[in-house]
Order: sequence, then C-alpha cells, then structure tokens
Amino acid sequence: MAESAAGFRVLGTTPVRHDGVDKVTGRARYAADVRLPRTAYAKLVRSPYAHARILRIDTSKAAALPGVVAVMTAAGLPIIEDRILDLAETQANARMLAENLLASTKVLYVGHAVAAVAATDVHTAEEAARLVEVEYEPLPAVFDVRDAMRPDAPILHERLTSHYKVARFDRGTDTGQHGNVASHQQIRRGDVEAALAAADVVVEREFTTSPVHQGYIEPPSSTVLWQPDGKITIWTSTQSTFNIRTSTAAMLGVPESSVKVIPMEIGGGFGGKNITYTDPICAVLSRMSGRPVKLSLTRKEVLETAGPASGSYMRCTAGATRDGRITALKVYLAYDAGAYPGSPVGGGVVTCTACYNVENVQVDGYDVVVNRPKTASYRAPGQPQATFAVDSVIDDLAERLGMDPLELRLKNAVREGDRDPNGNRFAPIGYVELLEAMRDHPHYRAPLEGPNRGRGVAVAYRHNGGNRSSVQLSVNADGTVNCVTGAVDIGGSRATSAMAAAEALGLAAADVHPSVTDTDSIGWTGATAGSRTTYDTTLAIYHAAQAIKQQMTRRAALLWEVEPEAVQFAGGVFSAETAEGAKSIGFKDLARRLLATGGPVVASAINDNNAVGPIFGGNIVDVEVDAETGKVDVLRCTAFIDAGRALHPDYVAGQVQGAAVQGIGWALHEEYFVGDDGVMRNASLLDYRLPTTLDVPMIDTVLLEIPNPRHPFGVRGVAEVPLVPPAAAVANAIARATGVRPVHLPMKPGAVLEALAQGALPVATSAD
Amino acid sequence: MAESAAGFRVLGTTPVRHDGVDKVTGRARYAADVRLPRTAYAKLVRSPYAHARILRIDTSKAAALPGVVAVMTAAGLPIIEDRILDLAETQANARMLAENLLASTKVLYVGHAVAAVAATDVHTAEEAARLVEVEYEPLPAVFDVRDAMRPDAPILHERLTSHYKVARFDRGTDTGQHGNVASHQQIRRGDVEAALAAADVVVEREFTTSPVHQGYIEPPSSTVLWQPDGKITIWTSTQSTFNIRTSTAAMLGVPESSVKVIPMEIGGGFGGKNITYTDPICAVLSRMSGRPVKLSLTRKEVLETAGPASGSYMRCTAGATRDGRITALKVYLAYDAGAYPGSPVGGGVVTCTACYNVENVQVDGYDVVVNRPKTASYRAPGQPQATFAVDSVIDDLAERLGMDPLELRLKNAVREGDRDPNGNRFAPIGYVELLEAMRDHPHYRAPLEGPNRGRGVAVAYRHNGGNRSSVQLSVNADGTVNCVTGAVDIGGSRATSAMAAAEALGLAAADVHPSVTDTDSIGWTGATAGSRTTYDTTLAIYHAAQAIKQQMTRRAALLWEVEPEAVQFAGGVFSAETAEGAKSIGFKDLARRLLATGGPVVASAINDNNAVGPIFGGNIVDVEVDAETGKVDVLRCTAFIDAGRALHPDYVAGQVQGAAVQGIGWALHEEYFVGDDGVMRNASLLDYRLPTTLDVPMIDTVLLEIPNPRHPFGVRGVAEVPLVPPAAAVANAIARATGVRPVHLPMKPGAVLEALAQGALPVATSAD
Repeated sequence: MAESAAGFRVLGTTPVRHDGVDKVTGRARYAADVRLPRTAYAKLVRSPYAHARILRIDTSKAAALPGVVAVMTAAGLPIIEDRILDLAETQANARMLAENLLASTKVLYVGHAVAAVAATDVHTAEEAARLVEVEYEPLPAVFDVRDAMRPDAPILHERLTSHYKVARFDRGTDTGQHGNVASHQQIRRGDVEAALAAADVVVEREFTTSPVHQGYIEPPSSTVLWQPDGKITIWTSTQSTFNIRTSTAAMLGVPESSVKVIPMEIGGGFGGKNITYTDPICAVLSRMSGRPVKLSLTRKEVLETAGPASGSYMRCTAGATRDGRITALKVYLAYDAGAYPGSPVGGGVVTCTACYNVENVQVDGYDVVVNRPKTASYRAPGQPQATFAVDSVIDDLAERLGMDPLELRLKNAVREGDRDPNGNRFAPIGYVELLEAMRDHPHYRAPLEGPNRGRGVAVAYRHNGGNRSSVQLSVNADGTVNCVTGAVDIGGSRATSAMAAAEALGLAAADVHPSVTDTDSIGWTGATAGSRTTYDTTLAIYHAAQAIKQQMTRRAALLWEVEPEAVQFAGGVFSAETAEGAKSIGFKDLARRLLATGGPVVASAINDNNAVGPIFGGNIVDVEVDAETGKVDVLRCTAFIDAGRALHPDYVAGQVQGAAVQGIGWALHEEYFVGDDGVMRNASLLDYRLPTTLDVPMIDTVLLEIPNPRHPFGVRGVAEVPLVPPAAAVANAIARATGVRPVHLPMKPGAVLEALAQGALPVATSAD
Repeated sequence: MAESAAGFRVLGTTPVRHDGVDKVTGRARYAADVRLPRTAYAKLVRSPYAHARILRIDTSKAAALPGVVAVMTAAGLPIIEDRILDLAETQANARMLAENLLASTKVLYVGHAVAAVAATDVHTAEEAARLVEVEYEPLPAVFDVRDAMRPDAPILHERLTSHYKVARFDRGTDTGQHGNVASHQQIRRGDVEAALAAADVVVEREFTTSPVHQGYIEPPSSTVLWQPDGKITIWTSTQSTFNIRTSTAAMLGVPESSVKVIPMEIGGGFGGKNITYTDPICAVLSRMSGRPVKLSLTRKEVLETAGPASGSYMRCTAGATRDGRITALKVYLAYDAGAYPGSPVGGGVVTCTACYNVENVQVDGYDVVVNRPKTASYRAPGQPQATFAVDSVIDDLAERLGMDPLELRLKNAVREGDRDPNGNRFAPIGYVELLEAMRDHPHYRAPLEGPNRGRGVAVAYRHNGGNRSSVQLSVNADGTVNCVTGAVDIGGSRATSAMAAAEALGLAAADVHPSVTDTDSIGWTGATAGSRTTYDTTLAIYHAAQAIKQQMTRRAALLWEVEPEAVQFAGGVFSAETAEGAKSIGFKDLARRLLATGGPVVASAINDNNAVGPIFGGNIVDVEVDAETGKVDVLRCTAFIDAGRALHPDYVAGQVQGAAVQGIGWALHEEYFVGDDGVMRNASLLDYRLPTTLDVPMIDTVLLEIPNPRHPFGVRGVAEVPLVPPAAAVANAIARATGVRPVHLPMKPGAVLEALAQGALPVATSAD
C-alpha cells in the first residue's frame, strides 16, 4: 500500500468508512428493501424471438386476472421526439431507451419486453404476464458484428443510417448509408499505410471478444409512486440519480423536476446502472393503478437483458523500426452495440494507441447493432477489448524485435508535452514512472520456473472526462461538519468526501458526516461513473470548504474586533494579532460560537473544473497453462496505477484489485453462450462464470502518486483504468507460456486446447 | 381576504400548497407511520402520585417477560451536568428535561414516568409496564401557584432558588431564596405607585386561568435507532429537528452531530412539540436492545404529561386621567410552570402592557413550580393569560370613563418611535391603523340586538424574536428551482418558501419545489415556533436567490461575451446590450444551458437578520349569554392583524381563524379538572372540550399590510399574536352582555351562572 501523501494530514490515511456499520449490520437500505403501503409488483412479458414483428398483443386475459391492477404495452409510454439528448444528461436517445424498455413494433432480441403487468403480489404478476398473448412474425436475426455489417444482413432498424465522427465527441455527419452500422468513428495522424510499408517489422492480427456482463451482485430494482399532482418519486438502485431523473422524465414526457429520484444503496454497478431498465415502466403502472409499483429484475433477466458489455471483432497492425521505434499503429474495431446504437467503441478508438508516442496512427471504430440485448457501459467502456488487441500486437512486436516488452513500451512511451489522441498535450502523467516501476518491481525480476508458465505485461491509458458535482457543507455546533453530496456512493465516496472536507478544514475524517441525498435536495450532480466522482466531488468540497473558512474567518474577526484579512487559518486554528495581543481559536471552539455571532455557517459549491484528465495503469501477470486441459491458472498478478493522489489508499487498492479480478474473468472465464435462436444458455451465476476467490491469486497493488496538477489534492480517477490491461496481460502471459497467441476472449480451456493443437507448445517459457 | 400585495407577482396570491396532494391522499408520512424492521415498542411506567419519593424500582419481572427486549429507569440516562443550555439551542435545562422524561429520586406529578420498557409488540410492552414494581413514599403536593408560593408550601426541588431577572432575556441573579419560585421577572418604567395615587380613575382586579392544552391532534411519536457505530437516527414529530438533536444529545451525553433527526409530517404542535417526550428514552432502549424503538403517546398521556400551557393567578391595576389618558399600569403575574421551572411568564411580562403608551409601568412575573406536568409553550406563550387580565381592566376603565373601548385604546396607542417594553423604539408597526380598522369595520358599527348580548374588543402585541434558517436553492435544467429548508412545515411554509423563491427569481410558485429535510442535510435551523419561520426562511431564500441570480447573470454574460455588470435581470428575464445588439434570455431558457456553461447553479444562505419585530392583532367578538344555563354563544367574531405582508393570504387568514377558535376554547371551554389527588379527570378529547365547529361562528379576518421595514417582502410573523386577544375580547363581551366581569378562564356555564348570581344581569346590554 502507498504511504500517506506528504503534506496532508487526513488524505492518504485509511479511516474506517462512515457507512461501514450500516453495511455490515444489514441496516443499509437497498432498492429491494423498499416497501410502501399498497405496493403493486410488476413483471415484464418478454420476447422468445431474437427478431420479430409484433402483430398483436392481447392483454385482456391478464387484465381480468383478480389482483392485477395495471397492464401496459409500449403504447403506455408517451411517444416523444426522436431526439438526441445532451450527452451530459443521458447516455442515449430517449426514444430508443423507451423502445428498449418496451418494444412497440418489433422485438430485437430474446428477452426484449413487450408488455408489463402489475399485481398486488409478485406471483399474481407472474401469472398475469403468462396470460398476455403476443402474436409475432419471426424475422431473420443476426448476432455477430461481421455478419451484421454484410450488405445482405437482416436489418434491425428501418431508419438507421451510419454517422461518421472524428473521435472528439462530435455529433457526426450522416453518411446516408442505411444498415446496421450506427457510426464510424475515426482518429488519424500521419500516414499509417506509408509508415507500415516502410516499417522494418510489421505485425498484424485479428481478435474477437465475447460480450461479458458487468456482474453487479444486486439486480436492478425500482419502486415508483406517481401521485395525482404529477409528482413522481423513484426509489432505485442507480449510479446516477440525475440521469434516471432526466431519462425517465424524457420517456414519460414530463418535466424532469417533477421526478424525484431517491438513491438507495447500490450493490455494484460498474457502468451497468447508468441507464434505466425499470423506472419509467413502474411510473406508468403506478399512474394507472394509483399505487406504488415495484419491479425487481431476476438474475436471468439481468444477464439476458440488462447489459452486457460489447463483444467485438478487431484487427491491429503495428510497424516498427528494427531498433524498436514504433512507427505505425493501425486498428480496426467493430463492436456490437446490441439492439440499439451506443456501443462504447469510441472509448476504444480514443485510448487504445494513447500509451504510444507514434507518428502514424489510424483507428477506425464501428458501432454495429445486432439482435442481442442493448449493451451498456462497463468500467472503462470499450477499452479492455481494444487494449487486448493492441497490447497483444505490441507484445508480438517485442518478441519479433527480441526486446523486453517493457523496454519497448518505455522506448515508445508518451510523456508530458506529447499529444493525446484528441490532440491535447499531456500534463505530468506519471506514465514513464509507471513503466519504470513495473520494470523495477521484484515481480518482474522474479524467476518464473516450471513448464507452461509465462509472464505477460500490458499497460493502459484512460482519459477521464469529468462531469459536475454539487455539494453542501454545514458546520455543527459540536465542531463537526455535515457534507451532503449527490453522487451515489459506490466505491467509498462518502469516506473520501469526508476526508477531503476534513483535510481542507483541519478536522479528522470522523469529524465530517457525509451523506448522499436525492435529486430534490442537492444541485445537479453527474453519475458515479467515468472515474470522475472523487475528482469532481472533492474539488467541489474543496471550494465549499474555502467558503466555510472565509465565513468562519469573519466570525473570528468579529469576536476579536479585527478585520477579516487579519485572521489566519492553519492546521484547524484561526489566529490573529489583535489590540489585546495574539489570539487563536480552534475550528471546534469557533463552531460552538456561530449561533451567537450571526448564525450557522453553510456553503454550497460545484467543481469549477471537470477536466479530470489522463491516468495510466499496468499489470504484470504470471500464468500456468495446463497442457492437458487447457486450463489457465493465474499464479501472480501485480497491478500498477498512477493514482495522482490516493486519498484513501485502501480503497484505491480495492478498486485496482477488483478491476484485476474482473479483467481476469474477462480474459479466462466470462462469456455469453448464445444459441442460433439467440437464446442465452448460461443465464445464471452458476453457469455464467464470474471468477471466484479460488480463480485468482492475491492481487498485489502498486500505487504511484504523481499529483494531477489540475486538482488541489492531485487526484486522478482510479476506478476504470485498472480493468483495461489485465486481459491483455493474461493473453501475453499465455503467449509467453505456450508460444501460441490467444486471439479470442475468453481464453477458456477448450479454446486454449484448440489453440495449442494448432500451434506448438515450446519446450521452455521465454519469460525467464 | 386581502388583495395581492402591490408590486409583487407571486406574493399575495393563493396557490395550491405544494404538499397538498400528499396530505389529502394520505401519502404524507407521520411519525406513527414509521415502521422499521425489528422495531420494538416502548411503554412508560408512570406515577400514580402527584408528589412522592421513589424508594425502589424492581424491573426484574418486567425484564423476564417473554418479548421484552429492554427495561430502563432514569439510571439509564447518562447523568449530565446541571447546566443551562443556550436558549437558542434548547428550551430548558437538559438535566431537568431528562428528569421530566424519567424521574430519578422523586416523582413530581401524576403520570411522571419512572421506567420504560420495550418489547416486540405494544401489548407485551403494556403488560411489562404493569409488571414494573415501584415503591413510593407519598409526599404532600401543591397544585395552585398561590399555595405554592406560601412559606409552608411543600417544596418540589431541594436546590431551587429564585432568580431575579429584568425581562430582557438576561440570565438573572440568584436571590438565594429557596422555594417553589424559580424566577421573578420584572419590567419597570416611571413610578407606578405614585401615578396610581394621582390617577383620577383606578381599576384593580384579580384573575385566574386554568391550564389548557395545546390541543394538537397528533400525539408525539418517535422511532429511534442507535447503531453500534454511535449514530443515532430519530424519526419524530417535532417543531424543531435541531432542538431535538441538541437536547437528545445533551441528555444522552453524545455529540449532537451523532444524532440525525428526520422530521416526519406534523399533526399540529402549537408550541407543544418544541421539546421531547420520547426521543432519548427510545434511544437508550434502542442501544440496549439493538433494535429500532418506537414510542407513541396515547391521548391520555398527552393530556396528562405533555404540556399543557400554564395556569395563572394575576392582578392588574390601571390608572387614568378623567379624559382617558392611561397613566399607570401595574401587573402581577404568577404562572404555574408545572413540575419544572420554565413557565412562559416572561412572555406575559414583556408584552401585556405594550399596546399602551403609558409612562408608569410595572409588571412582576413569577415562575412557580407546582405538582402538575411540566408546562410547555403554547402559541404566544404566556400572553393570552396576561392580556386577558390587562385588556379586561382596560375595558373596565373604558366603562368607568364612559369611553368607547377602541377610542380609549386609540388615545393611548403606541406609535412609531415609542418605546416597547424592552426599551427599543418601534419602527412602523401598523397598530393605530389596526385600531382604526377595527373601529371603522362594519362589525363594530353593526347593531347588536336582543337581551344578554354584548360586544367586546381586545388587542394584543407580540414581539417576534426570530432565529436562524438555512436554505439551499438549486436550479433544474427545466427552469424550475429546488428549495430545501430545515424548518418543519406546520402552517404552509413549503408554499411560502416556494413563493418567496419564485418572487425573487421571476418564476411561478409551482416552478419551485420546496422540501424540508433532516439535520444531516441542511445547515442549522431554528424551530418552527415563535412566529419566525416565514420571516427567517423567506429572508434566507431571498439571499440565496440573489446568489442564484448573480451566478446566472455570469452565465448570460458568458453566452453574450459581455461583462456580468452589463447584464440586467428583471421579470424573470436576463438582458444586455451586446456588440450584436440587445439580447435577452428568460430564466428557464438560461437554466437549460447551465450544464454547458460551467455546471449547475446552487446556493446556500441563512437569514442575515433575525429581528422579526413586533406585530399587533385584535378581535371584535359578539356573544349571547344564556341566563338560565350560563352558556355563552359566540355570535360573531372578526379578527384583525397587521400581517406586514400576507405572502399567502389564505394561510394567514387560516392562522388567524385557527387562533381565534383556540382563543374561544381557552375563554369558554378548556380546562384541566384535577382532583385533590392530582389526577386529571378529563384526560380524553371527549371530556377535554376543544371547541368544535358547532361552538364557533365563521371567523372573519381582516388582514392589514403595513410592511415590516426589516424584511425585503415586508413580512411580520403572524402565527401567534391572533391567539392573544380572543379570550379577553370574549370576556369583555360577556361583561358588556351581563354587567358582570369574568375573572376566571374558562367562562364555562357553571362559572358564568355563579358570577351572575353574585352580580346582576343588566336589563340591556351596554354594547349598543
């Protein structure tokens, strides 16, 4: 673990989390715990077809069932304009989100909902759902991105045309090309074809990855009450109360301020709970029935319809000079978006080459719809796939050049002043330091004995985009401070919020009481997503704390009859030279006197910049491949990150460890088994193989701290980048162990055996 | 009803209250609606004696009863210092409040609790309470203030000495006199004895009043969870979340910020819910049992132990010149505090002579403990009693002088520039205008025909003290504004808060979403009490709105590339002359662009002044007295108030009407029947006679609006003063109807008959 950051008293320590007792005693309330009087329970009627026209829906039998209080179809969701909402507000087009919730004319994947019922108990609701009669006209379906891009492919959307975008978050240009490609995103620098032609060494490979699920433990659950005065209250499990507010309001055609979203504790999200699967449906059923309506998805529904991350088809070509200067990187990415546009291919496009200071770059990304559930964000969306491709090819290149893979990366590393893929120059980024730390780490130098073992490395860059957070601080008479935020606490943000306020005000972490509140009770706040929350929230807190100090300074000046400018604040103590000599008063003592000197001290603030900026991470992984079964064991894994400043090092380490485990799952275990009929065959956590503690070693973490110059505490955003390199590192380790390059994720035993059968096991591993 | 105030768009209108649908549909959640998993239910073991030493408490049988999870006595409440807490924080000494909750060595009134039990259901708790064995040594008791002030009276408190205070809220001087008198409060001006000796006409009378209950419909109820990490969460019915926080923390010996108080809707308070009867007990039982613990008082417990307002013994002597100039007012007030010091006699002292510009004044008030339940504040605490005495004597004086009672009041009215009883000069106060409005009102000029009928008037002054309120405003992208406050909404403060924000920001009342939140989520905020809430809260909102406008102005300037100073805001529209000509943008359109121009706009504020200041009210009442039964019917009642500015005139009228009804109840119906044993004989709402709609006529209201110069909207505080004059006005009407001066409240039929028997019914009433 990192040592406490120099110059800080609270930041860099590891206090017990403020919400810990709530969690371990079971008092913390999750969405499924919400029980309002007269609640009705909803169930969805889902399509058995991957692609079909809806000819008729007859809800009469369901509606007639005693206990049923409301039945709805897509007609119950107000028709709204097919408009693109502001990306800052919601992740996707509201019309399409509504279609994904309830199909109106066509179903686009197995499990696509076509109707919803609500009844006085969940069993009656299940029975009613079975009584809804739907007549379908099945259509040919397409599940693979390459198939979906063929001219003769079944077409999912009648009006979808491809948009061309240069990958700087522009809105794109309509190419007029009708099909299943929603967008083509591109970055280009130099002349990649000429550079490849001139390169001494060229490596080119194809890769594919299976969709994987975010794997949050808590299924989505919402309870919604639509009152006769138009007020809609939502108790839900979400990463973003304000996203849910905006998108639900858009789908219902009501002003967003008529919706109040109350965040319950969240049992994991990982990007999968930024959008809604439940809220607007519950809202309409509530309006119809006059009752609160609750909808909790089953695990089967979660896996079949809520998420997953995109599967992909990718190509990567790299060229280099004989002495190891990478001269060209050409990447082709085609990501499946599921049934509606919006794969995170852009995330792959703008990041996969960013670690490398290469003059000639071209990355083309395609967002492709297929007859699978609409994909959702998953921690560093779009990046693990693309980095798997690029860092596998870089590893190949290193082997071809006879170079150590970290030395090759160091030789080509981006540094301060170089340009990122969006053309902006890097501030101090800690990437070279990270590579050096990996190279010099005992793990990298340790011998790796035994047959069929290999060591792989991979690195990753992520540009954290940032958003806005509103906070409120108020001072209690006992000298503590209440800290109210609007960003759902997933990874310990209550604790880091409290620590930031404590640091700024000279208090202990336990002296700050953090809470997360609803959308009516705090200013607009972005999602807990995109590695932004700690950066933006603690920056807003820093500013609010300055306002608190300023007001308290005035109170001290009042007590001492001096000008406020004469009062200093340091180490939690206000002091001044007065006519009666030097005076000082601690924060807590002054807090006690606020009511007598003008009233309580309160301050609201937002983060004035949201330019979180880049972060880098890397992994060293040792594996052993069982040549008889194809099973890959991860023997050792060390994860590196430049955290900027690790406010709570244990939580940063926890983020890094959790991400490494997810990355190992992606690399070795997790996949969607889908039949030709589009039906998922492994829709349970028994069959969908998340890694367990038996599947992974202890993940060692190395937290570097090269402060982010944009933030007073030096914070970067640590949540996502650690998920990016592990799959590539595991693949590189397997390649080193077996001499066979894995080109498909997951590298499950059968696939490894097949690869081994086509290649040849080397006599010894090449890593030592 | 008043017309909309000139110059305002929203203030002075009567929009539907924002919380209306919640209330009428039953969705609003009250404390009794709180049900947490594993809740245990508490019951109190109460004393059958009015005064007794506790010799022994044996809780073993109760604790052994299956289902009982905790049993406690006073020993379970941490012993804390006998210190006076800041009056701004809590109404009374925490040690005494704790003693009132659970007696440690002596019980001081019938119903005084000595132990508490908690069980898995309320019936088991009741049974357990019966199983607690208490051995008492009964002591002589005293119930009447005059008896309690005698040298040989039974003494309630061994350490109580009388404090002398000049009535400016000073802390007093200990006189060292041991007894039942807790304090003697005095105001003096001129030489009242000399002036009385020199007066042409002198009237002197004695008066007594019975205790009356606040009469809130919802009994106190709390649910408290004390978690293992020390966090205490309280769901309760209170007028002041922050008072409950402070006093509960003090009684438990924990930091106040470890207590979170969540305000549920409140079913009336009227001053009676500023202090706690339940919360610390529930907290300790929760800590003992590890469960949430709920305690709801029964109606019998409410009447016997929670409240009431003080009974009193009073004398008033007035002197005047023959031409109607009042030269002297001498008042003696002795209020029963119940078992612990803290009667509101000071409220009577500083207000009862304030309507009259009299050179020689002396008011002496005595706070006297007796073996009755500890009294609590009741709407204009201490004032209706004293004004009943003073305004009865003024009425006598008018009769003796042969003057119209309103003319006598006009002749002696205080005006701008005169001094109030605390010695401060009056700003514009609207009192003369109020008297003139009464004199000129059709009611006052209407003939009153028939025998045994009479018309009475009375007036009252109240100095509203003020406190602090914290608020937070945030702007939604749909152009609405969320308004968060910490003051419990009793009289419609959500609506007036929203209206104030709307007025300041050029919006409609429905565009502002008001909410009241818990003590963790907003800055310190005083009680909803003392007629301060609308003044302080709307002032804080006014300041927050200025900050919002300032920030939005900067956004408009950014859009138009002009300096912020160039941007004007009027009528909800920002405008500026720019290089491209005149530009303007409405608040709502600009709100939509906030996320793209720097992030959300939020602001916190407090009221920068809390000097609410004086308010005046008056009543004209017509009665008919049934000479055979003594029953008094109120035929007509018109209530006048100078509201400063009636922000929501319907709610002001409602406050005035409700207060008039309560005043009529105090005058004619309500009293505590207490036997020689100290047992209340009418402890139910069947026997304790609150007035019903059959007992009162429609109350007509006249709202004057002479703006309060201290507040940008001109607000005064209307909640309390209308309860002050009705009893005096009814008494004066009875005197005019019968020729017999009522000297005791209530003027119930028996008492009236007795008075009639001692006096003589005049042939005709004297009012016409």
